[in-house]
Amino acid sequence: MSYIDELGTKAKAASGECAALTETKKNEILKEIADLLLNSKEEIIRENGKDIENAHKNNMTQALIDRLTLSEARIDGMAEGVMQVMALADPVGKVIGGGTLKNGLSIVKKSVPLGVIGIIFESRPNVTVDAGVLCLKAGNTVILRGGSDAINSNKCLVGIMRKAAERCGVNPDIVQLVEDTSRDTATELMKANEYLDVLIPRGGGGLINAVIKNATVPVIQTGEGNCHVYVDRFADIDTAVAIVDNAKTQRPSVCNAIENVLVHKNIAEGFLKKLSEKWNGKVQFIGDSHSAEYITLEREATDEDYRKEFLDYTIAVKVVDDIDEAIAHINRFGTKHSECIVTEHLKNAEKFQREIDAAAVYVNASTRFTDGFEFGLGAEIGISTQKLHVRGPMGLEALTTFKYLINGNGQIRG
Amino acid sequence: MSYIDELGTKAKAASGECAALTETKKNEILKEIADLLLNSKEEIIRENGKDIENAHKNNMTQALIDRLTLSEARIDGMAEGVMQVMALADPVGKVIGGGTLKNGLSIVKKSVPLGVIGIIFESRPNVTVDAGVLCLKAGNTVILRGGSDAINSNKCLVGIMRKAAERCGVNPDIVQLVEDTSRDTATELMKANEYLDVLIPRGGGGLINAVIKNATVPVIQTGEGNCHVYVDRFADIDTAVAIVDNAKTQRPSVCNAIENVLVHKNIAEGFLKKLSEKWNGKVQFIGDSHSAEYITLEREATDEDYRKEFLDYTIAVKVVDDIDEAIAHINRFGTKHSECIVTEHLKNAEKFQREIDAAAVYVNASTRFTDGFEFGLGAEIGISTQKLHVRGPMGLEALTTFKYLINGNGQIRG
Repeated sequence: MSYIDELGTKAKAASGECAALTETKKNEILKEIADLLLNSKEEIIRENGKDIENAHKNNMTQALIDRLTLSEARIDGMAEGVMQVMALADPVGKVIGGGTLKNGLSIVKKSVPLGVIGIIFESRPNVTVDAGVLCLKAGNTVILRGGSDAINSNKCLVGIMRKAAERCGVNPDIVQLVEDTSRDTATELMKANEYLDVLIPRGGGGLINAVIKNATVPVIQTGEGNCHVYVDRFADIDTAVAIVDNAKTQRPSVCNAIENVLVHKNIAEGFLKKLSEKWNGKVQFIGDSHSAEYITLEREATDEDYRKEFLDYTIAVKVVDDIDEAIAHINRFGTKHSECIVTEHLKNAEKFQREIDAAAVYVNASTRFTDGFEFGLGAEIGISTQKLHVRGPMGLEALTTFKYLINGNGQIRG
Repeated sequence: MSYIDELGTKAKAASGECAALTETKKNEILKEIADLLLNSKEEIIRENGKDIENAHKNNMTQALIDRLTLSEARIDGMAEGVMQVMALADPVGKVIGGGTLKNGLSIVKKSVPLGVIGIIFESRPNVTVDAGVLCLKAGNTVILRGGSDAINSNKCLVGIMRKAAERCGVNPDIVQLVEDTSRDTATELMKANEYLDVLIPRGGGGLINAVIKNATVPVIQTGEGNCHVYVDRFADIDTAVAIVDNAKTQRPSVCNAIENVLVHKNIAEGFLKKLSEKWNGKVQFIGDSHSAEYITLEREATDEDYRKEFLDYTIAVKVVDDIDEAIAHINRFGTKHSECIVTEHLKNAEKFQREIDAAAVYVNASTRFTDGFEFGLGAEIGISTQKLHVRGPMGLEALTTFKYLINGNGQIRG
């Protein structure tokens, strides 16, 4: 029996108990997790320190080390996040449909947990607790597979979640960590159909594509955001500049930030000059030859650039002849995440929303709003860029499925 | 550009037009398809005849030839099926959620087509029209990849659907057939993420497992049904016999027929003897040693037998010590399709429905009711045995996803 087989068997064994936990009991565990986090700061910071030490040895960039680092304030934030999940309504056990057939059969369609969820993520240890408690609140057991860079932090954090379950009299195997972070365990997890109901990758494009390519377990594809703002011929230029500025620079490293701006040729000069003035070198432009007439480009953009998530202060620009060219470009290069048109023209707004194939299609607002909290879901396990099951921000409901409960008194089919 | 690339490019190009078709236009095409089917019987039967001739040459079994054969009556049935789909409500464009955020952003969550659907199926040519029109009614373009055994029939039927689209002024590429039925085209289709939004396999376990193993496109897993009836200690024996008889013999070749009966030890003798009398050799028993005390077994059952879909007049039997053993057995060997308990004991009924992990969990009724038509969905593209997106019978709604339409007046994130 392989290591993943062992974890899988334990997860499946704990799954029934986890699915049947009452909301009260689940909240009791969550409260315990929050308390333990707050009472274990010293230990968490000590274990996290080992990861940071290794990171320095491995010459990790300062930006990545920052993401890896757990301070007292970050632990407070984690605990607060757990309390927020505690406050959310239980998504399990809701009657979402049903009725009585002519033959008297009663059908109730009821929400139930997905079962066992695998989560593969990179080295942000706050994901560990965040994902763990969301899965738990939706009645799922979870197998977490973080990166080797955060292994000591993750062991400590998962240890805390397991201890909390135990203290509440619940099987700690509702949360497990893959402690062997070799590539083999990730690959094996991707093919663990016998144990896993769903696999959710959280991280960069490389990780997500590896999971899509290799997984036989059903995957929820998340997080890649090659997003655009299209500044229509009928846009208000000040509104367009404000939206593009916010969508690009308010937090460039996240998936709902934009990577591209398309602009109608009739408005291109005025808009691009004003944007360039506003940014004054803060953001680098790469773009097509037409845009070079109005702004200074770092270099000319290639198809590869139009396909890329810069996640940084760089933006790809293209001047288009009409809205159809803009829509075709976005549907070709976009990742079906969040797209925006700035326009005062009703028909163009409607056409853009109808024809763009993406989870969230905006008229005159920043793409940065695509977010579980902003959308009122209360939480977010990721942003789905696929079309099956859930699209856009994934809250607790996305971690459930349903089953049909059918009650009869001997009905047979004629 | 490969053959599949060509089909994929055409499907994607037609996808926007297809998604935007009004209900009236879609119904016009469906009506045209039904009329053309009825007016092309001679041609369809002639083309189907070529497939039957080849089938005889290839020594296909009579049962398979029967499934392949299109008679006038079957073509009438197909046309009637198309008219039924026409009568169903359009699943596209429904507002399924939304609201207004504090900052004034309006969010509308609206149902939209999945986009481009690939369907890989085996040699039942009725699936061709059935799947084609369901995809179309939900606004999806579809690439159909049937088996080589039915290639002449499929060419003819897809030709009819394409002609109907053209006659209604719509791009015929909304329905395409993979005419090259080599294994390569199937494999390529499974990895055509650039073109396909979803892949649905329809057929036996071998096909479905090949798709799960090889596909990188999101898959909806359908149709494998290793279903059970558990006859509880507190069952009414006559009810149990009637349900098991119906679930096994009313149509043994379908996925919602049962393959196994589990029976509590205290009631095993009475129940098994009565069942055996009723069947009087019509169904072969294979079972555990305990059951051999009461009925004549063909042979002793192995784990492999308990895992198998016989799809025939064979049933696997097991005597269990209690309901927990029954539930554990079903959750181990079942395919999460349809499961039934026969009992008069309320707590056992509830426990079974809570703890069994399957799409449809019955109390005192035949598993044969798991069906889109029986459940009132009006149609069925298959029965999902996975947990993502849809579980159990899949109607038109399962062929849609949603998008968020967000309208603002310059909102940016702070």
